[in-house]
Amino acid sequence: MTTRTEPAQVTTGPIAGSCRIYATPRGRPDIPVPFREVTLDPSAGEPPFRLYDTSGPYTDPHECIDLNRGLAKVRAPWLAKRGFAGAPARTVRLEDNGGVEGERLVPPCPAPHEVLDGQAARFVTQYEFARAGIVTEEMIFAAHRENLGRAQAVEGAAARRKDGESFGAAIPDFVTPDFVRAEIAAGRAILPANINHPELEPMLIGRNFLVKINANIGNSAVTSSAAEEVDKLVWAIRWGADTVMDLSTGRNIHNIRDWILRNSPVPIGTVPIYQALEKVGGDATKLDWHVFKDTLIEQAEQGVDYFTIHAGVRLAHVPLTARRVTGIVSRGGSIMAQWCLSHHRESFLYERFDEICDIMRRYDVSFSLGDGLRPGSNADANDEAQFAELETLGELARVAWAKGCQVMIEGPGHVPMHKIKANMEKQLATCGEAPFYTLGPLTTDIAPGYDHISSGIGAAMIGWFGTAMLCYVTPKEHLGLPNREDVKTGVITYKLAAHAADLAKGHPAARLRDDAISRARFEFRWADQFNLGLDPDTARDFHDETLPREAHKSAHFCSMCGPKFCSMKISQDIREQARRTEGLREMKEAFNQQGGRIYVPVDEAG
Amino acid sequence: MTTRTEPAQVTTGPIAGSCRIYATPRGRPDIPVPFREVTLDPSAGEPPFRLYDTSGPYTDPHECIDLNRGLAKVRAPWLAKRGFAGAPARTVRLEDNGGVEGERLVPPCPAPHEVLDGQAARFVTQYEFARAGIVTEEMIFAAHRENLGRAQAVEGAAARRKDGESFGAAIPDFVTPDFVRAEIAAGRAILPANINHPELEPMLIGRNFLVKINANIGNSAVTSSAAEEVDKLVWAIRWGADTVMDLSTGRNIHNIRDWILRNSPVPIGTVPIYQALEKVGGDATKLDWHVFKDTLIEQAEQGVDYFTIHAGVRLAHVPLTARRVTGIVSRGGSIMAQWCLSHHRESFLYERFDEICDIMRRYDVSFSLGDGLRPGSNADANDEAQFAELETLGELARVAWAKGCQVMIEGPGHVPMHKIKANMEKQLATCGEAPFYTLGPLTTDIAPGYDHISSGIGAAMIGWFGTAMLCYVTPKEHLGLPNREDVKTGVITYKLAAHAADLAKGHPAARLRDDAISRARFEFRWADQFNLGLDPDTARDFHDETLPREAHKSAHFCSMCGPKFCSMKISQDIREQARRTEGLREMKEAFNQQGGRIYVPVDEAG
Repeated sequence: MTTRTEPAQVTTGPIAGSCRIYATPRGRPDIPVPFREVTLDPSAGEPPFRLYDTSGPYTDPHECIDLNRGLAKVRAPWLAKRGFAGAPARTVRLEDNGGVEGERLVPPCPAPHEVLDGQAARFVTQYEFARAGIVTEEMIFAAHRENLGRAQAVEGAAARRKDGESFGAAIPDFVTPDFVRAEIAAGRAILPANINHPELEPMLIGRNFLVKINANIGNSAVTSSAAEEVDKLVWAIRWGADTVMDLSTGRNIHNIRDWILRNSPVPIGTVPIYQALEKVGGDATKLDWHVFKDTLIEQAEQGVDYFTIHAGVRLAHVPLTARRVTGIVSRGGSIMAQWCLSHHRESFLYERFDEICDIMRRYDVSFSLGDGLRPGSNADANDEAQFAELETLGELARVAWAKGCQVMIEGPGHVPMHKIKANMEKQLATCGEAPFYTLGPLTTDIAPGYDHISSGIGAAMIGWFGTAMLCYVTPKEHLGLPNREDVKTGVITYKLAAHAADLAKGHPAARLRDDAISRARFEFRWADQFNLGLDPDTARDFHDETLPREAHKSAHFCSMCGPKFCSMKISQDIREQARRTEGLREMKEAFNQQGGRIYVPVDEAG
Repeated sequence: MTTRTEPAQVTTGPIAGSCRIYATPRGRPDIPVPFREVTLDPSAGEPPFRLYDTSGPYTDPHECIDLNRGLAKVRAPWLAKRGFAGAPARTVRLEDNGGVEGERLVPPCPAPHEVLDGQAARFVTQYEFARAGIVTEEMIFAAHRENLGRAQAVEGAAARRKDGESFGAAIPDFVTPDFVRAEIAAGRAILPANINHPELEPMLIGRNFLVKINANIGNSAVTSSAAEEVDKLVWAIRWGADTVMDLSTGRNIHNIRDWILRNSPVPIGTVPIYQALEKVGGDATKLDWHVFKDTLIEQAEQGVDYFTIHAGVRLAHVPLTARRVTGIVSRGGSIMAQWCLSHHRESFLYERFDEICDIMRRYDVSFSLGDGLRPGSNADANDEAQFAELETLGELARVAWAKGCQVMIEGPGHVPMHKIKANMEKQLATCGEAPFYTLGPLTTDIAPGYDHISSGIGAAMIGWFGTAMLCYVTPKEHLGLPNREDVKTGVITYKLAAHAADLAKGHPAARLRDDAISRARFEFRWADQFNLGLDPDTARDFHDETLPREAHKSAHFCSMCGPKFCSMKISQDIREQARRTEGLREMKEAFNQQGGRIYVPVDEAG
């Protein structure tokens, strides 16, 4: 039951202990790149700690947020120079909002939005610029963003990288704009940035960059409103979502999407077939190229940055799913399977893929080639259907590149740990290194209510192996629609998984944050420990539960051991003693020379 | 501030949708082994699904639980035949309860407890019986328990095992009592079972058995009471804790432990040095062999099943920690390090290890050789200090075996993903395949408040690689003492990780549960999906949030897509259609013969 609600309020203000700052790349004072800086206890003698920031102007107390006006159009001056034509926007039709009118219609977002059309321009997509050797402002912005801490770490960078295992990724010591360009040109990375989304803060998805995460939001036929969805967007990016997919399937979806786009600093993805299905009354058999094409243009003009297109679900693949335990679990996949079967025809998405490319190139909408046949259970993991589709996706990625489009590939799903690596290897082999974008995978099926965790395990692992972006799973997976709290839990879990992957891959500077928090922990700087963490509010609340007084935030003990005895304190004493005597190592050597070992292994003794 | 509270109430009654049942091994009707059986929707034509059950009599509605009486002594008849002498119990002293008297003293548990002493018996420990070729009742019990579902799965067992990657583990198709005996005799598994813990339901910890999990409970100097701790014990085993460690450090700990042991069906572990430290007023330098030995006997007589002994923290190892980011984070480790340094002497635990073995053999208390030098941050993982200690633990394991004791080895800690496998490999190589028992490991340090997840990732991985038991981490790690809800979250997270590991190792029958829940999901048997999961209550609550009505529990849709469109429904239609036409596969072949592929890779087309 959709209710007509205009977005009213979203969460603003800085994240505890930090502020949003801007820094500019060398020589480009016109490109301010946002970061988040955590202020540390001055007595510790540590400088403010800089973090990647996805939260947009919402966490900047100097910004005046007005959802009706939308965000500032940071890309407008860059786009203005690229020869794109202003185009008359497609007229919004009744069916775009699921047929709702009057009272029940969510009003469109009043923020100004001039539609651009790249048709006539020589280069439109970041891929085309990159292939032509042109470094765009978006690339400069994104490069600077990725470099987080690398300047500081550059001395130790080689050592740090040696410390990781990157499985063949080529992670640079320092990210230059030209490295970004080269990665995009090679198809190894995408920079999703629709020319109609000028509010975007550009970012990169690719195996040689930091692992990114996506959060899904969206209303459904059963529940949700525009206010809730915009609030979820702002909430998701506050905690670190790098991109957000709007998976709405109910009514008002055109107008809700408008609110989302005009107020989103992160790339927005959609699955256009969902809206197309709404337009034909929910009957998959009534879908056709006409309604789908119309939907692509509608959403591209609004500024959607990437489309999931399930063009890999071919007629011939459908029978491969008949013996599965859980059949087809992707909504898009099952829509297309139903269409193919009922018409007994090849998928129109596959047949019209050239035309789809032409539309997406025109606005620089990136492809996210959907895994419509992903396994929905451990039993179905890595099966014939899944891999047949993956090969088709590899074939289509090459078509998209030839057409000048950016492309990434979606992946599973439900996969037990021992079958995860094969997914990454097969994707790399078949899809020409196009970025992999996986949902989880869930490493077991037995944990409804905890699938953020069962999938967080798989996500960390596949991120380590080379997946470029991890699509979050919330605790409500399989059970219901995520609320605000679920969105946050999903995002934090996936930030954690992505960071664990960055550490294991040996990203230069990734460990700086771990080390900073570990030092804070060791030195009983409680506030620093909270604020350097992924979720300062929860960390502080948990500490408050046992030791609520403010004085305890500087206490040299915690509730685990209490004041009388503390292992951290003892370690500090040991260190102190070591400093005083300066002789511990000598002590050890002396001891070893005396023989040292009292017990010898049984076999040696025998 | 310890409050004097007697245990009053704990959570009893069956877990939603299931009941506790007993089954006996072939030929041994005198050994009833508990399981949990989930009743499935009769219309599905599936038999009740049998699960491993750690919850004890508390979930059996036929049992009358009275904490004052303690649990039934299921092992008493087995123990009676082994020639152990009844011994006069050590007199409880004021210092055992931290000096509290009168009002503030938690009264001892009134349940009857006759102390046994194995001193004079030929065989006391399960290891000794196993080495002598004798299969004990405990082994028969535990073997039957492990076989969960293997009888059903035995046909497909080979196929299932081939589906996993066990890294050299030798998991049998079917667990016989003699296989259990052989594993214990080889030191590859332990069956922790103090002869003074007759209430115990025997279980196994070893690489060739199901991965187990431990939950920590315990009061501290700052908070907690006996009522709370017994409640946490029962709560932890309800959700699946295989063993429970009582890490109490405050007052009343002797009597609280009494309540715990007399009411625990799972092995209880402790860290005796904690209590010894209490007895000397919290000053580590005042510890000595006398007070430690006294504490060992005190706790062994009470029935503690395994002791963490930090005998690997040798004087020579301490200086290796001086340059660490987080020093020594293990409480036991830092106590011993402080003792060694202040006296400038070798650890008395190491020097007296022979005598410790003699005491532990006498009651069959298993060793958990503590990793006092485990890393407390990713920065310190796999360092010299950690591995030097591990080698000492390997040396001590051989001493313990020579003395007839059972032994497992504790492991880290904080370890990034790419360094986890080396831990397992090094442990296997240095510790003669003694079971590995790890805390996490945490794969990143940046997630205070979510460390059950950062460690759940590491736990699943190291469990897959060969760790026999995973020590849980709760969301409160690093921040405060876990409450009831945290205990549950920690246990469920670790059950999930352990099961993911079992699946990946290829345990025969492990996937039966995943497949059962996947079928329930596919067939919209909502109640079955909830009840087959790790936490039926939470799953149902989450579903209720969006679709609260009981009718929705049999609805052929969910809140994610709504009634109009559902991918599971479409898959079922596809399957139906496949059945009707019986021609999908032929269809596919015909299609392929017609050419099939429309797009060819760029290079082929080139």
